[in-house]
Amino acid sequence: MDTAKIRLHVEQPLGPGQTVRLEQGQAHYLFGVMRQGVGAPVALFNGTDGEWLAEVAEAGKKAGALTCLRQIQPQRMPPDLWLLFAPIKKARTDFIVEKATEMGAARICPVQTDFTNSERIRQDRLQAHAVEAAEQCGGTFVPPVDDLAKLGRLLDAWDPARRILFCDETLASGEALDMPRDGGPWAILIGPEGGFSEAERARLAALPHAHAMRLGPRILRADTAAVAALTLWQSRLGDWV
Amino acid sequence: MDTAKIRLHVEQPLGPGQTVRLEQGQAHYLFGVMRQGVGAPVALFNGTDGEWLAEVAEAGKKAGALTCLRQIQPQRMPPDLWLLFAPIKKARTDFIVEKATEMGAARICPVQTDFTNSERIRQDRLQAHAVEAAEQCGGTFVPPVDDLAKLGRLLDAWDPARRILFCDETLASGEALDMPRDGGPWAILIGPEGGFSEAERARLAALPHAHAMRLGPRILRADTAAVAALTLWQSRLGDWV
Repeated sequence: MDTAKIRLHVEQPLGPGQTVRLEQGQAHYLFGVMRQGVGAPVALFNGTDGEWLAEVAEAGKKAGALTCLRQIQPQRMPPDLWLLFAPIKKARTDFIVEKATEMGAARICPVQTDFTNSERIRQDRLQAHAVEAAEQCGGTFVPPVDDLAKLGRLLDAWDPARRILFCDETLASGEALDMPRDGGPWAILIGPEGGFSEAERARLAALPHAHAMRLGPRILRADTAAVAALTLWQSRLGDWV
Repeated sequence: MDTAKIRLHVEQPLGPGQTVRLEQGQAHYLFGVMRQGVGAPVALFNGTDGEWLAEVAEAGKKAGALTCLRQIQPQRMPPDLWLLFAPIKKARTDFIVEKATEMGAARICPVQTDFTNSERIRQDRLQAHAVEAAEQCGGTFVPPVDDLAKLGRLLDAWDPARRILFCDETLASGEALDMPRDGGPWAILIGPEGGFSEAERARLAALPHAHAMRLGPRILRADTAAVAALTLWQSRLGDWV
């Protein structure tokens, strides 16, 4: 009873004795797919109250309820790091959202660049991927996924206190891996498969709060580059230190 | 004529004036799918002779030939880093091979661990993924993909001069990111989704040439962990430095 193998993200507040009602999808998953019954242990988190051990109090086909027993993990917020990326093919976009969640991004911002083909994204579907990834990776936080925004407009309204690390494969190897050492709010920006346009690269290079970074001598796909850049940041400035 | 947008991996030697015959699959891709004709520029690499600019000399439905003009990139070998990983679901296994190639692993070794479900892999299919990834990432080297081997047997016959970096999510945060700074041959070992067994963890911990590493406070999927571990190694000991 002390360990729950199933973790669910819920929207309700969590606290001692709190009853959490399940909506149809989660009831189907828990009782139909995973075949859990009354008394089964389940771990719950809602993104603000940490992780709680709960047990099933009512199990039905279309609904159910859990009772919170005790907190088993405090709430942990990720460092103040956003991931901006240009959506690519569907499967790889899903992967980027999943990976950004596992890697501890605080906010995920799909951006439309000059060479981005996508004109729209399914924000609700991407947000659901972030929830699933948080359930899977043991985190207690789910990064919000924004709707698609134009990179140019985002930069127009950008708070210069949040520095930008952008990956530029055109940098020469002598320019090395320019990973700054100063903390504070950051955003990583990953371009589309075709890279940034000349105009975008020039604009980014001129921003005093933007830093270019090179990710090795090979050209990485956008999903690989996202994980690599998040790794470098987390291991030097983030919660991997 | 100076820039080729299409890169192909071929098996033949490359040199000035060298004729390279295409087999059916590549002829179909180049002439049928990509609609290239005689005189079109194509970049070729074979894993040993660097990258060559070539032009189409004959274009047929089932065959064709190219003539090498000049070398446009020297051969670049990756650092002596192997990636050992436990195969998981098909799509994610494909991704790991693709990512390991982009990230510059010199050899890819699928291993069967106590908690690995796969009993066989399609080595030929995984090798084809490595070739495709090399074509895509601009590298001139294709890492060989081994057939599935038992982790225990590999460790029995292991050369202790090749150190092993294994990812252990059970390490406490105080033990931090134990990334050694010494060069030479290395292998990164990524466990299956269920982690290593107690027996495997004990055996690895007892090996003087094995080092445990923690990849942050969240549990990473195997494909994410592979990219993260390769990033840390490449940025400190490899060809990203």
